[in-house]
Amino acid sequence: MIKVGIVGGTGYTGVELLRLLAQHPNVKLQAITSRSDAGTPVAAMFPNLRGRVDLSFVDPKEAALDQCDLVFFATPNGVAMQQVDALLQAGVRVIDLAADFRIKDVAEWEKWYGMQHASPKAVAEAVYGLPEVNRDKIRQARLIANPGCYPTAVQLGFLPLVEAGVVDVSGLVADAKSGVSGAGRKAETHILFAEAADNFKAYGVSGHRHLPEIRQGLTNAAGQSVGLTFVPHLTPLIRGIHATLYARITKEVDFQALFEQRFANEPFVDVMPAKSHPETRSVRASNMCRIAIHRPQGGDTLVVLSVIDNLVKGAAGQAVHNMNLMFGFDECAGLSQVPLLP
Amino acid sequence: MIKVGIVGGTGYTGVELLRLLAQHPNVKLQAITSRSDAGTPVAAMFPNLRGRVDLSFVDPKEAALDQCDLVFFATPNGVAMQQVDALLQAGVRVIDLAADFRIKDVAEWEKWYGMQHASPKAVAEAVYGLPEVNRDKIRQARLIANPGCYPTAVQLGFLPLVEAGVVDVSGLVADAKSGVSGAGRKAETHILFAEAADNFKAYGVSGHRHLPEIRQGLTNAAGQSVGLTFVPHLTPLIRGIHATLYARITKEVDFQALFEQRFANEPFVDVMPAKSHPETRSVRASNMCRIAIHRPQGGDTLVVLSVIDNLVKGAAGQAVHNMNLMFGFDECAGLSQVPLLP
Amino acid sequence: MIKVGIVGGTGYTGVELLRLLAQHPNVKLQAITSRSDAGTPVAAMFPNLRGRVDLSFVDPKEAALDQCDLVFFATPNGVAMQQVDALLQAGVRVIDLAADFRIKDVAEWEKWYGMQHASPKAVAEAVYGLPEVNRDKIRQARLIANPGCYPTAVQLGFLPLVEAGVVDVSGLVADAKSGVSGAGRKAETHILFAEAADNFKAYGVSGHRHLPEIRQGLTNAAGQSVGLTFVPHLTPLIRGIHATLYARITKEVDFQALFEQRFANEPFVDVMPAKSHPETRSVRASNMCRIAIHRPQGGDTLVVLSVIDNLVKGAAGQAVHNMNLMFGFDECAGLSQVPLLP
Amino acid sequence: MIKVGIVGGTGYTGVELLRLLAQHPNVKLQAITSRSDAGTPVAAMFPNLRGRVDLSFVDPKEAALDQCDLVFFATPNGVAMQQVDALLQAGVRVIDLAADFRIKDVAEWEKWYGMQHASPKAVAEAVYGLPEVNRDKIRQARLIANPGCYPTAVQLGFLPLVEAGVVDVSGLVADAKSGVSGAGRKAETHILFAEAADNFKAYGVSGHRHLPEIRQGLTNAAGQSVGLTFVPHLTPLIRGIHATLYARITKEVDFQALFEQRFANEPFVDVMPAKSHPETRSVRASNMCRIAIHRPQGGDTLVVLSVIDNLVKGAAGQAVHNMNLMFGFDECAGLSQVPLLP
Repeated sequence: MIKVGIVGGTGYTGVELLRLLAQHPNVKLQAITSRSDAGTPVAAMFPNLRGRVDLSFVDPKEAALDQCDLVFFATPNGVAMQQVDALLQAGVRVIDLAADFRIKDVAEWEKWYGMQHASPKAVAEAVYGLPEVNRDKIRQARLIANPGCYPTAVQLGFLPLVEAGVVDVSGLVADAKSGVSGAGRKAETHILFAEAADNFKAYGVSGHRHLPEIRQGLTNAAGQSVGLTFVPHLTPLIRGIHATLYARITKEVDFQALFEQRFANEPFVDVMPAKSHPETRSVRASNMCRIAIHRPQGGDTLVVLSVIDNLVKGAAGQAVHNMNLMFGFDECAGLSQVPLLP
Repeated sequence: MIKVGIVGGTGYTGVELLRLLAQHPNVKLQAITSRSDAGTPVAAMFPNLRGRVDLSFVDPKEAALDQCDLVFFATPNGVAMQQVDALLQAGVRVIDLAADFRIKDVAEWEKWYGMQHASPKAVAEAVYGLPEVNRDKIRQARLIANPGCYPTAVQLGFLPLVEAGVVDVSGLVADAKSGVSGAGRKAETHILFAEAADNFKAYGVSGHRHLPEIRQGLTNAAGQSVGLTFVPHLTPLIRGIHATLYARITKEVDFQALFEQRFANEPFVDVMPAKSHPETRSVRASNMCRIAIHRPQGGDTLVVLSVIDNLVKGAAGQAVHNMNLMFGFDECAGLSQVPLLP
Repeated sequence: MIKVGIVGGTGYTGVELLRLLAQHPNVKLQAITSRSDAGTPVAAMFPNLRGRVDLSFVDPKEAALDQCDLVFFATPNGVAMQQVDALLQAGVRVIDLAADFRIKDVAEWEKWYGMQHASPKAVAEAVYGLPEVNRDKIRQARLIANPGCYPTAVQLGFLPLVEAGVVDVSGLVADAKSGVSGAGRKAETHILFAEAADNFKAYGVSGHRHLPEIRQGLTNAAGQSVGLTFVPHLTPLIRGIHATLYARITKEVDFQALFEQRFANEPFVDVMPAKSHPETRSVRASNMCRIAIHRPQGGDTLVVLSVIDNLVKGAAGQAVHNMNLMFGFDECAGLSQVPLLP
Repeated sequence: MIKVGIVGGTGYTGVELLRLLAQHPNVKLQAITSRSDAGTPVAAMFPNLRGRVDLSFVDPKEAALDQCDLVFFATPNGVAMQQVDALLQAGVRVIDLAADFRIKDVAEWEKWYGMQHASPKAVAEAVYGLPEVNRDKIRQARLIANPGCYPTAVQLGFLPLVEAGVVDVSGLVADAKSGVSGAGRKAETHILFAEAADNFKAYGVSGHRHLPEIRQGLTNAAGQSVGLTFVPHLTPLIRGIHATLYARITKEVDFQALFEQRFANEPFVDVMPAKSHPETRSVRASNMCRIAIHRPQGGDTLVVLSVIDNLVKGAAGQAVHNMNLMFGFDECAGLSQVPLLP
């Protein structure tokens, strides 16, 4: 049993972490912090946790996080970078579910996130927590940059193709659709029910913060610079991301086999039979990513469909997966929920 | 490990049983039948079960159900009553998730269900599987009539009051709202997305089949005939029932204490603090029933709010609970999922 | 053509007023105010109005509202009462879509709304704008208190019964369900999509501000004090209210005929055939209220189902109806939209 | 006033035609046919039409369609082609909302639609009813092939680019998302509420029937063969299509100006300011198409966003628009509804 703390547990990644960790065999939840809700029982805010999580939110100052083995940051961007150095020095390992350590190029990060970085050194040390790419490094890491939700779905769908060098990486297109929980739990008009229900729109087409993150990952995989058009959309789901990926073929291979081999040993990537249409609900509440590939009309454009639950494989579940790797637990511990359908 | 068969697994109670049983520590799924889909892998129809359930649907004739320890019927009304006698004779225990054995008065049953009953003897033997009322009888039972979804939510909310004789049982009102999965997975126009989304309506106000079932249970609890107005509504949820119950007070007691004491030892009934407003999502995907009581404006009318997931506590979860009792397993085995929120 | 101003047009009742008034043959929109959004074109905030409404929001101070023939207040509670005296003195007529003038008992109003009333004189003058009750007074009025959404649906459903004295008015029950737009467009956590979608809950069971408003209307109609239990619920609709009303019969009459006669000449109340189940979508985007009555199992409890679009008959449409009456326009002018289904 | 008949009015395009025609100043609804529902009042099936449409469905044989000036076919594919010759000979004009006359290459049509065409001659005569392309021909036409919903949204978004020859037409990508009403009102499992709500998926990636229709239109506009990858998705909306279109630039022009000029005189195409994100609800219940263009990161890929209401501009509204042109009515007659938001 390790002692785990959570900083900032009042958002959706926070409550999802709690849902998963409450059932994890190797974890003892030590503290969960919230400045504004200190004193409130967690289960009063999230009644699904009644009888399952007895903690109350505590003020960060009283949380004794340095006594934990591991601290998750489920905070807005820019918080973890302020505290990570002290925690690492105290021997605590850290998984940041926000974006503070995802982009290696600090100047690039500062441009997209509009603030100065507080710990470039930590950025350099951090391991990007996509187990399908960095499993071994994650096992050794003290600090994990947990990937964003879109980047997880998009990278897993493109990786086999760009690693194998079989598509034109100068003109990749990622058309991605996200459920509304991806926008967080902060009260904002555009994500009100009466705004987002029965409505569909693109957003951030000119430039979304996940673009440089995806581009970094694909560039590393391709060994060359990639050209990516990334268009996110808001769709009236609570949970779920569906990425529809387009790439022009430059080299003929057995694409189905390529994907199956690439992910053969991955517990959380399911390559479906050719021509399948994965549904977001087929992974709802689970850490699974399901992928299917198509070559419409036998043409030169490959279409990859990739679905995840943005709060699990796209956030809290992947963080638990990273924790399992870091601490040598069974890789699937606490992550064996059967997806919820219907 | 007991050997379990499922008859008719292509509906929502079927897939929900599979979700729960796939994670149950004491169960080996032996066979799942479907006449029309024999040969189809279960996971092809329900992709959430990919990698979790390896069975294919088999024709009922080839299922060797008489080799099972327990058979669940997740079939339309009128099927289980045809097969139950043979199975019981073969030493197989049976849990029917449909309505065949719920109403003790066979004539009444035949009136509401519009068919002749094939096994009145089995009706007489069957135990009504509401553990909060019949726990001990369930432990001994060979045949369980698993309660309907509305009847579960409504009875649990009224029981403490009618058992204690503190309300006027001649004029109970149950205003109940159900998610659309309660109507099943058969293709019918009125439950199409474009019909049921962004829409709310009552139905069956003149008389719904769950009315006699609820009335029977409350009459037993009250020790006298009850007058009940039951109005079901269809609401654009996938899962969930919210019952709003009204009763006029005839005797002053501490109603909050009454409910807390009545359910003190029940693992799947959560009496919330007075004046709470339980949400359906607080029990989504779990076997919990949450209840809160109100006395608006200090008047003479008590309002009880009772929520369940219609597919779990209202169907498959309660069936697993009954199985656990029948076979002496840990009462909560396979039923410890944390509700999914958001 | 009359000159019309709108105070506070950035909420849902505001945009709905604009939708209706943009198509009204007798109205010239003069000004629409918003302190925070002054300068913003209305169509930039509400793109459905592109090409239809050319106004920009203006600061209240520059709106010259005293030049209008009529001003609608689509503001939070407590705003109209500050400005109404000056407008009336300037010869401007006023329709308040908020609650400032709905409750005749000022002390009662102050208790429920938690503020001191700024103009008890205006309360005394105001006419409660439910045309089915006060048509003639509305025609002469300078100041209209436009009814709340729940009160409209509930009163129309109960009125024939309490006016005729055929039910027990000491124990009326109104179980009402509202779409989320009824909670307004202000950013609040509990009405986020990821909170309110696929979820159902009661709220305000201990006491909702619409309770005294409904009680006042029914007491007037009954000629005696009424006992009412009113339970509102939040349901995942954008628009729509469904009120399910329960009353115990004290005198036998032909209830269907009673309703048909009561509303025979009402253009915006549709009494459906007995045993119908009106759907909220059957009135979506229209000013219609549809009502159906049931007497389940021939018992002593009558069930009335009443549906409206909370933003139209429950707010902006009823306000336009009141305007039509006040200015002698065709009563249905601008209100002839066919409901949107699906 | 022209006399209008509708064949097959029990689906969503049928009820939507009725909603629009019930408010059209130049139309008298003569007959609406349905074999299975003959005798049923239209308003009993579609209660939004209560008090607005007094017709009952009649058997096709008794409809005297040859007495009409215009007949709409709102039928499944393959019906209109059986009846069109007789109607045209009788001097009746015809608008087919299904696909029978959309594809000029009859062999291609037969391949995609899996049946033999009954009237190739009619195909040759038919005018493709996209007013933004064929306005003058529509004015003279006896027979209109009303465009599909996806083809309307996709073609309008690509047309300015392919007509101007400024993008690479060999690699166009159309990623389109449709509300569930696009799948019709026939009872099918995959479009049940409990299947389609809170779920997102692609479908028909290998080949959708709208692909050849879009390709035909774009090929005509380009004057050369086009390569198009078209991926439709089902999204939990009732109404709405959002097409996200990708094209690589081959010639620099002012793209915003190109679109604005192309559609300058179009009453039903709204080119929004550059970098806008049109929402489907901004056109809900209206005949408008809103388009916005983006050039993310200043790269070589152009992104066009195009939204319509699939039942209006994508079906019934466009049909009414075509009728207006054919009969010399005001082009916007009956089509001036303000979109419904929220």
